[in-house]
Amino acid sequence: MKTPRSGLDRRAALGLGVLGATAAVATRSQGQVAPSGAQPRAVDVVVVGAGFAGLTVARNLRKAGASVVVLEADDRVGGRTKAGRVAGQVVDLGGQWVGPKQRHLLALAAELGVKSSPQYVDGKNILDLVGKELRYEGEIPPLEPKDLEEFARLTAEVDGLAAKLDIAAPWKLEGASALDHQTVESWLQSATTSEPVRSFFRVFTRALFCVEPGQISMLGLLPMTAAAGGTGPMLATRGGSQDAVFAGSVWQMADRMASALGDAVVLNAPVRSITQTERGVTVTSEAGVWTGALAVVTAPPPMAARIHYTPPMPPQRDALTQHMAMGDVIKVHVAYATPFWRDKGLSGQIFSDHGATCLWFDMAHPGTKLGGLVGFFVGGGAQTWVERTPEERRARVLQELAGYLGPEARTPIDYAEQVWAAQPWQRGGYVAVPAPGALTAYGPALRGPVGRIHWAGTETADVYIGYIDGAISSGERVAADCVKRLRP
Amino acid sequence: MKTPRSGLDRRAALGLGVLGATAAVATRSQGQVAPSGAQPRAVDVVVVGAGFAGLTVARNLRKAGASVVVLEADDRVGGRTKAGRVAGQVVDLGGQWVGPKQRHLLALAAELGVKSSPQYVDGKNILDLVGKELRYEGEIPPLEPKDLEEFARLTAEVDGLAAKLDIAAPWKLEGASALDHQTVESWLQSATTSEPVRSFFRVFTRALFCVEPGQISMLGLLPMTAAAGGTGPMLATRGGSQDAVFAGSVWQMADRMASALGDAVVLNAPVRSITQTERGVTVTSEAGVWTGALAVVTAPPPMAARIHYTPPMPPQRDALTQHMAMGDVIKVHVAYATPFWRDKGLSGQIFSDHGATCLWFDMAHPGTKLGGLVGFFVGGGAQTWVERTPEERRARVLQELAGYLGPEARTPIDYAEQVWAAQPWQRGGYVAVPAPGALTAYGPALRGPVGRIHWAGTETADVYIGYIDGAISSGERVAADCVKRLRP
Repeated sequence: MKTPRSGLDRRAALGLGVLGATAAVATRSQGQVAPSGAQPRAVDVVVVGAGFAGLTVARNLRKAGASVVVLEADDRVGGRTKAGRVAGQVVDLGGQWVGPKQRHLLALAAELGVKSSPQYVDGKNILDLVGKELRYEGEIPPLEPKDLEEFARLTAEVDGLAAKLDIAAPWKLEGASALDHQTVESWLQSATTSEPVRSFFRVFTRALFCVEPGQISMLGLLPMTAAAGGTGPMLATRGGSQDAVFAGSVWQMADRMASALGDAVVLNAPVRSITQTERGVTVTSEAGVWTGALAVVTAPPPMAARIHYTPPMPPQRDALTQHMAMGDVIKVHVAYATPFWRDKGLSGQIFSDHGATCLWFDMAHPGTKLGGLVGFFVGGGAQTWVERTPEERRARVLQELAGYLGPEARTPIDYAEQVWAAQPWQRGGYVAVPAPGALTAYGPALRGPVGRIHWAGTETADVYIGYIDGAISSGERVAADCVKRLRP
Repeated sequence: MKTPRSGLDRRAALGLGVLGATAAVATRSQGQVAPSGAQPRAVDVVVVGAGFAGLTVARNLRKAGASVVVLEADDRVGGRTKAGRVAGQVVDLGGQWVGPKQRHLLALAAELGVKSSPQYVDGKNILDLVGKELRYEGEIPPLEPKDLEEFARLTAEVDGLAAKLDIAAPWKLEGASALDHQTVESWLQSATTSEPVRSFFRVFTRALFCVEPGQISMLGLLPMTAAAGGTGPMLATRGGSQDAVFAGSVWQMADRMASALGDAVVLNAPVRSITQTERGVTVTSEAGVWTGALAVVTAPPPMAARIHYTPPMPPQRDALTQHMAMGDVIKVHVAYATPFWRDKGLSGQIFSDHGATCLWFDMAHPGTKLGGLVGFFVGGGAQTWVERTPEERRARVLQELAGYLGPEARTPIDYAEQVWAAQPWQRGGYVAVPAPGALTAYGPALRGPVGRIHWAGTETADVYIGYIDGAISSGERVAADCVKRLRP
């Protein structure tokens, strides 16, 4: 998988009816690493990006008998999932959790024999809100009854809008324009006078979208919320989107899919340009040139914009990519000799409205005595701390954890972090978020193919947008679309 | 200027102290068009983009004795200025007007001997607002007295904030975060209950920023407003930013600057990557590779993001480029046998809050009997009409003009349009606008150089941001910065 080589051993007859151009050069495509100027190699479909979306596209196309290559800019597969180590244990530095309704990811895990274990939730959670530190069990934050009622009213309003949303066409929602032209912050200012409720909603926005509430519109909030089953399941651990984690990382599933694809996955192959004609596509990467009947770009819209397209993208598609941006997130793992907070009756789950870090969870390391915490700088916290040194961030993290969990937090045995904005091929996470006004102005360009170029990736999903499950489902959808086009 | 050739005839000794790398390869740089793999050519400064900013950088560096190359992606110079023809007359399809305080542009015009003539303003303007068509003379819209007072109060509030703004550091303004986290639309909803005032302010936002009021934050509005001297001068013709036009186009000044630079300007040279080391920069374009001590990128941030940088841009700079987007604008020229509206006592100036087109001006063709109108689809109007055919847009334009000026408007003798979002190297106009929340989160990355890469362009200006004058001033600033670095 490490060496850029032709992945055409299994060339199939499928689709050759539309493949005049690529079929004609098929005999030239068996070579080794292409130096600049070498002959292009031909496949049915050229896939850009080896995250869960791209790998799913490729394996489903293979299953259907099509030949593929997956060009990955990075030196690893997995996209916004990535494995790392803390205290010798494999952890996820990117996407991590799975919920019970994420059937695409659960099916993949079952197929690959990757086991999940429930997120540790025993004991009291901590909610640090408008200057008060509250401790509570379960999913319901211990706000004052009137605030809790108000928070329920606001989330019901959001969930009500989400329930009415056509996820693939949010601009069709009644009142879409007004919702898209106000930020979540402005909505909060007008929807409630309760500062705890505003602040908790801000935490919700940061934690789930990695933006400040003033960076996303009310309409922008809805597709991800609707696709995840509502605000409750999005925030929840048990039974919700943080229900379980995979032993040995979720990333290993990307790794195994890539291994099964063998030489068809080419690493260190940033795609510089895609040219399409009536006959096919030509994809030029740093690792050589491939031709195909179709291309599938799985990079999130703001990153897909950095590929040069000939002919140029239509105005609406180009504008969409200018008006979506990656969220701001730094993920942190801290390992301790023991999970000392558990002995104090604490779950390790922390939400804070003023810390540099915004949310924390217990990160169990089964089969060891180690304690682990996994936390996030998100939105403003990430924006403020992204240009600081790892040492400065580590000191801040330990200071904040000590404030919540006790002085033992100051003496970890290991620390690992992932600054997603610094990763040259991801430049943020979890997901690309539309700017206010973008969905109503340019939204239709998110999913529709442009000629022979299809778009996959979690941003284009109909379920669990922003989650790994959404990435897989988008890959399945686009693979099916490609098969239909290859078999006219 | 059309053939990519070395522009190194005037190589200067300047700066060779910091130019080990480039000086070493200077002898290799005298070749003709570089095929892929040819030796790089060496200059002191590699300038990316041949708009007014880039050409100003280059000519000022030349004056200071430095050697330059200007790599232009397009097949012409001028960037967001461009000449076209309508009824045989040369017109500006992009930036056009000049105001009396735009000293950089006026000085350039004086130097080049390009004459300006006053914008035609005689007769009554038309304001079509909340379903009423109002006709009036002068700059003050004929709103009801209470609405006029309210509009004055709102513009005074904006101008008051603009007056307090540090244009180069808008995030330092008191209350910046709250201003950046609400859209202009939300501000309008809370600032006034007058529908005519809201609607006129929306027209103002569309006309001057080419966005819907729900796409830009209140803070986002301020730098351009402050840099143009306030809302009044921005909207005004006589004495304001639409005071005068240049005979034979403003674009010709870019053309003349480029001619004076000779072979140093290379067209059809899209820059694909910029690599910097401790010793210098290497800029790879479709027309070959150049090395230099410094690079100056003049493309607006969302377009500059499409260049591949090694090492990668710091997170804050990359995020800024993800959170700025080009405005939406289609510019239209319509020519008539006579300026028939003048005979009706009309100025040709039209503002509309509900048309596909939003604003119109008389476009005089001196020395002819022709009548001309120049108008704009901006913001939502441009978004709706950008994917339609030129024929459909033309029909709509004539229908709207006939509604305001009479049936004569249906029979023009010529029509020309420029869809800026469809231009592959500009992808919108007039200017890149920061998304809500962007200035406070990422603003400091707009102007500061990253290593050996400096940023110019009208977005980085301190005066007349978004205007040609700002582009020139940014070029002067960055040229001076470069000279300082080349002469340590």
